[in-house]
Amino acid sequence: MIGGGRGAFIGAVHRIAAAMDGQAVLVAGAFSSDPARSKASGADLFLDPARVYGSFVAMAKAESRMPEDERLDFVVIVTPNYQHFPPAKLFLESGFNVICDKPATFNLAEARKLRTVVQRTKKIFALTHNYTGNTMVKQARDLVRSGFLGELRKVVAEYPQGWLSTLLEKTGQKQAGWRTDPKRSGAAGCIGDIGTHAENLSRYITGLHIDSLCADLTTFVKGRKLDDDGNILVRFKGGAKGIIHASQISVGDENALNIRVYGTKASLEWHQEQPNELIVKFPDQPRQIWRRGNGYVGVNAARFTRVPAGHPEGYLEAFGNIYREAFHAITAEVHGRKPPKNLDYPTIDDGVEGMAFIETVVKSSKLGAKWVKFPKILATPKS
Amino acid sequence: MIGGGRGAFIGAVHRIAAAMDGQAVLVAGAFSSDPARSKASGADLFLDPARVYGSFVAMAKAESRMPEDERLDFVVIVTPNYQHFPPAKLFLESGFNVICDKPATFNLAEARKLRTVVQRTKKIFALTHNYTGNTMVKQARDLVRSGFLGELRKVVAEYPQGWLSTLLEKTGQKQAGWRTDPKRSGAAGCIGDIGTHAENLSRYITGLHIDSLCADLTTFVKGRKLDDDGNILVRFKGGAKGIIHASQISVGDENALNIRVYGTKASLEWHQEQPNELIVKFPDQPRQIWRRGNGYVGVNAARFTRVPAGHPEGYLEAFGNIYREAFHAITAEVHGRKPPKNLDYPTIDDGVEGMAFIETVVKSSKLGAKWVKFPKILATPKS
Amino acid sequence: MIGGGRGAFIGAVHRIAAAMDGQAVLVAGAFSSDPARSKASGADLFLDPARVYGSFVAMAKAESRMPEDERLDFVVIVTPNYQHFPPAKLFLESGFNVICDKPATFNLAEARKLRTVVQRTKKIFALTHNYTGNTMVKQARDLVRSGFLGELRKVVAEYPQGWLSTLLEKTGQKQAGWRTDPKRSGAAGCIGDIGTHAENLSRYITGLHIDSLCADLTTFVKGRKLDDDGNILVRFKGGAKGIIHASQISVGDENALNIRVYGTKASLEWHQEQPNELIVKFPDQPRQIWRRGNGYVGVNAARFTRVPAGHPEGYLEAFGNIYREAFHAITAEVHGRKPPKNLDYPTIDDGVEGMAFIETVVKSSKLGAKWVKFPKILATPKS
Amino acid sequence: MIGGGRGAFIGAVHRIAAAMDGQAVLVAGAFSSDPARSKASGADLFLDPARVYGSFVAMAKAESRMPEDERLDFVVIVTPNYQHFPPAKLFLESGFNVICDKPATFNLAEARKLRTVVQRTKKIFALTHNYTGNTMVKQARDLVRSGFLGELRKVVAEYPQGWLSTLLEKTGQKQAGWRTDPKRSGAAGCIGDIGTHAENLSRYITGLHIDSLCADLTTFVKGRKLDDDGNILVRFKGGAKGIIHASQISVGDENALNIRVYGTKASLEWHQEQPNELIVKFPDQPRQIWRRGNGYVGVNAARFTRVPAGHPEGYLEAFGNIYREAFHAITAEVHGRKPPKNLDYPTIDDGVEGMAFIETVVKSSKLGAKWVKFPKILATPKS
Repeated sequence: MIGGGRGAFIGAVHRIAAAMDGQAVLVAGAFSSDPARSKASGADLFLDPARVYGSFVAMAKAESRMPEDERLDFVVIVTPNYQHFPPAKLFLESGFNVICDKPATFNLAEARKLRTVVQRTKKIFALTHNYTGNTMVKQARDLVRSGFLGELRKVVAEYPQGWLSTLLEKTGQKQAGWRTDPKRSGAAGCIGDIGTHAENLSRYITGLHIDSLCADLTTFVKGRKLDDDGNILVRFKGGAKGIIHASQISVGDENALNIRVYGTKASLEWHQEQPNELIVKFPDQPRQIWRRGNGYVGVNAARFTRVPAGHPEGYLEAFGNIYREAFHAITAEVHGRKPPKNLDYPTIDDGVEGMAFIETVVKSSKLGAKWVKFPKILATPKS
Repeated sequence: MIGGGRGAFIGAVHRIAAAMDGQAVLVAGAFSSDPARSKASGADLFLDPARVYGSFVAMAKAESRMPEDERLDFVVIVTPNYQHFPPAKLFLESGFNVICDKPATFNLAEARKLRTVVQRTKKIFALTHNYTGNTMVKQARDLVRSGFLGELRKVVAEYPQGWLSTLLEKTGQKQAGWRTDPKRSGAAGCIGDIGTHAENLSRYITGLHIDSLCADLTTFVKGRKLDDDGNILVRFKGGAKGIIHASQISVGDENALNIRVYGTKASLEWHQEQPNELIVKFPDQPRQIWRRGNGYVGVNAARFTRVPAGHPEGYLEAFGNIYREAFHAITAEVHGRKPPKNLDYPTIDDGVEGMAFIETVVKSSKLGAKWVKFPKILATPKS
Repeated sequence: MIGGGRGAFIGAVHRIAAAMDGQAVLVAGAFSSDPARSKASGADLFLDPARVYGSFVAMAKAESRMPEDERLDFVVIVTPNYQHFPPAKLFLESGFNVICDKPATFNLAEARKLRTVVQRTKKIFALTHNYTGNTMVKQARDLVRSGFLGELRKVVAEYPQGWLSTLLEKTGQKQAGWRTDPKRSGAAGCIGDIGTHAENLSRYITGLHIDSLCADLTTFVKGRKLDDDGNILVRFKGGAKGIIHASQISVGDENALNIRVYGTKASLEWHQEQPNELIVKFPDQPRQIWRRGNGYVGVNAARFTRVPAGHPEGYLEAFGNIYREAFHAITAEVHGRKPPKNLDYPTIDDGVEGMAFIETVVKSSKLGAKWVKFPKILATPKS
Repeated sequence: MIGGGRGAFIGAVHRIAAAMDGQAVLVAGAFSSDPARSKASGADLFLDPARVYGSFVAMAKAESRMPEDERLDFVVIVTPNYQHFPPAKLFLESGFNVICDKPATFNLAEARKLRTVVQRTKKIFALTHNYTGNTMVKQARDLVRSGFLGELRKVVAEYPQGWLSTLLEKTGQKQAGWRTDPKRSGAAGCIGDIGTHAENLSRYITGLHIDSLCADLTTFVKGRKLDDDGNILVRFKGGAKGIIHASQISVGDENALNIRVYGTKASLEWHQEQPNELIVKFPDQPRQIWRRGNGYVGVNAARFTRVPAGHPEGYLEAFGNIYREAFHAITAEVHGRKPPKNLDYPTIDDGVEGMAFIETVVKSSKLGAKWVKFPKILATPKS
């Protein structure tokens, strides 16, 4: 693990998610750029001190020399955004598979470069857009793909939070600190941190790609350096329309990632804070509540379920599902086998598209909320 | 009553709303431009045939000659939009008070003219933006006005419906027919029909006026002549931002007018389909559910309540509240008294602002969803 | 109208409900046993003072002498329970139809007598168990009757309120006063006031009759004379089981009448505070939300709808539906016609069964919460 | 681990819960009474085959001979009920701490004996009444204990499920098989399996102990050997009243464990399927929704939270909380230290009280649903 030392939030989440199904064990880490802090964090986690490093460079060097049966199968990167690309590139080129927190990189250029590295090294790169790990999100995608909704017309994706409604970054709160700092977070604040989740979720469920967008970003909190709110009109390729809005000044909202998708035959909505339900609506039939764990849930979604219906799964289980699926790919890679078909986890292509989203939004907003075309994103050819 | 004959929807609603508190009795009408249909409708309603007219012109003429103690106290206009202005003007100038369905007129120019007529005749003109009649909407306004929410930052108002997701107007459905016909409805379809409600609700609760907006209207259903979906970015005077979106192709949504208002200290949300509740959220306290009929509801809202908490009030009661309040003004006018202070019903000023909203939205959309300034709207000076 | 003068609650509800559809006009009343108060109440309602009476006896005498075209078509009784039987009997025997608030009478013996009077006079007697007037309750009954749920197994009906969690009756609050007074309310407090609604709703939807029950009533508030909470186990004829519980000390609950009905094939639940929805559940299909006003709602329920889906109807509309249906019967009676088939309003048979429920519950509780057989209730033969 | 081999449900849940916080590693097991199946299950879990046993007796013998630094710190028992007592007793007496699935034993007599063993051996015995591991359940308990609700008056605890609404046990479904078999499950079916959870949750939150109860158990599904539905009236010591009902024939209900607690000052409700929320109601204030992860959640509850507000935790996290807390006790025991104060996990005392509940319910029902006194249960003296 790179990053995720004492005081971090997402590192612990990754550790629980990775270990949930008994498929992985943490054995090494460079938990902080401060070697002492890294050591202390490794001790908290009962690691062999010899495999706790003061820098990811040292770790890559040492670990790549380990005998094959002791070598890491993969590395997890949970550092702030500006430190995604360097370790990702280094570990991929050192022969390791990589699981990386989102957004993929610091900017689009880096993401494109990283894609080249992934393609060249043929290693697995998984990006933890964790919300797509939810069973009912997968069911939503299946309904769209199967034509159950008909032709798609409109998507409303929103992600309001309220935790940054004051200048929290000046209080020493670590999370607020780096997420509002353009040097560590990138060109966008709220949009980079959570707007990308909304965009990714929309794309995952609908398969729609953005043609152009018009974004009005705001920094409401005085003294803040990056946007803390963004409202975006979207035109998708093929004619569907959309709204994406995200906010970190929506007082009292916690993590209200919600999506509604409207088709000609039916529509659906999913609310991250009630993740076990998928609401499906019709022109002329009773509204339906599809609930995780029931027999009617399709196989593509059902295989991501751990406990029966009515036993709520949540954030960590969805996160674990990203890991579970990436592990299938990594296991195949490690054993030199072909990966199973239809693996379902976010890749570097999602990362590039996410970074392109951030850049396009920022560009539109800087132009005074003008319409801007989405850049061309070539997907990695399926092997 | 002008309009509202057999086959109409909103006429019956107005009749129930007007009669709800035993303050008004229907005695005359021109229910249809087809005299036979008007007669038949009058008979359905047990009216004296002598006071059922074949046209509003005939009605105005005859009724203004009635002795004072038999004369109408007010006229209700429930015709399609293009027939609001002519009867409104005529009855106001004939000495009658007027209650009119929204939107006020066919276009902004008519609305401005109508305002002049209202100002000149000094008659009461009430516009039935019925959703602002809900008790908990009034409570929401009170919370905003009292500073409970702090400074306002963001408003999200949405009004998705699904009933026009097919070309219903070609089936002979009367409601769909006129509402999608630019000759009878005006320059906008969905935005004129329901977008104005969202805008009015936002303005009523927050007191914020739009500075500029960027609107992307769509006609999804082939063969339709007006928009059936609209997504609008809003910048309010004073710096708050907003999103207003309305749709009539949101399959399975019924009448999902919802609003969220975010301030620096607290935020609130209200859902028209659960009208008895107001959700209030804080940075650091449990979320609150304020419920109609309880002792903690403020006096400005509580006086619009008919039954105790837990006995749901709905659409008709809210509609009735507009009438109830307009009746206070009309009663005063009829008796030559000064109206009570702080009467709370939509006036011609709301009508003008609503028509300006429609025109600005249509203009923005026609320019390719560019930002357009909201026109100047002078309010009627308070007497 | 008998009762319902100044300070009363349910009188105003009846007036709105009766007038809602423009089918009835209030013309006479004995609003209070205090003649001055009755006069004042009549004036509030714009009645001809000549038809405002100081007692129901005076009213019955005077009104029965009126010419036929001016005579009342029916009388509404909204007095406290102990004053239901005397005016009901008198007016029925004086040739008037009667609409009466629930519970039917002061005790079971009176209810049985009243049934005899109704049968003898052949007048209409309608009992306002208003919650069965809800459209989605009617849809629930239809689903049960059609076999959609299969064989019924379990019913859970509950009615918690919190408004009597303190000794409110000692503060002079009029409603609390008579409802907790055994001389005016009858043998039961909470169970008579609202427990009967739960029992009636259960019987209306399921058609199940109670075979025996075991009731544990409690008076939690010191100084109170009647029960303020009751928990009841029920065995229905035919083998289904049930729970009915009602409370007026359930702090913070408002009017939470809820019912769940479980069958072998499906189950349903309805919540009075969200009356426009009916939840239907299956062993192996997504949960369904049936919503009032949609095309899929069956004809028996749909005819009780006034406004489209998504425009919430509530307590008053449901109340109005009882009136609307009773009016069909009364209109037929007045014109000497046979009433339409399948009229759907509560009759004296419901009243007798409700009073039997109260007596059985009280008996069981007094025996120490022992199982007690439900008495035999012969229904009025269908004419 | 004892039990939990291929095809089991709860074994996997325990494994995830135990490993969630990186505090425990599975090293040995007797996963099935069929040695081949046990071996295969051990292999699935990557265990050293030498520590996978064909019986718990063999395991106890072998593991107690292991050197101290390789010995098990604790054993987890996840077998059907009839096989709780024998391994629990053996392992405790062999010097191991024990974590055991609920209900504690096959019957009350065994539970009492087991308590003696626990007291004698001074080992830790934790019982996984997992629902009390939910953060907001802990918050509920804190509110009650702090007097926030005032004096308690009424408790309604319910646990409807629908999965046994047909004779599933005849289809070979393993879970249904043993849970409906009196030889493996005990004297009660539904009440033993889930009714105990409702009772335990009620006791945990309120601290109330049952004085007497009246239970009406039913076996609705023909051919079934144990109850599949139970309705219970409860009188608590101190005067509060309650209802506990549980069902496995409530078609379409999944795992709807819900509790409402009413006090003189406030009331609360918690719904297991929405575990991150706690609803708090007042006589005269807006209803409150307390949500996990916020700053206002008290310390006793907050320490059981892993991820921020709005990131839903669920069933597995609550289960993990039982483990987390038991680990504090076990760690102390293993190191010969005094355990921290105020540890919060279910013990053998909860097990004895749960078994007494089952026996009392069954007794009452067999007597024809008569009131029966709850037996005396002496708690383990606090050391």
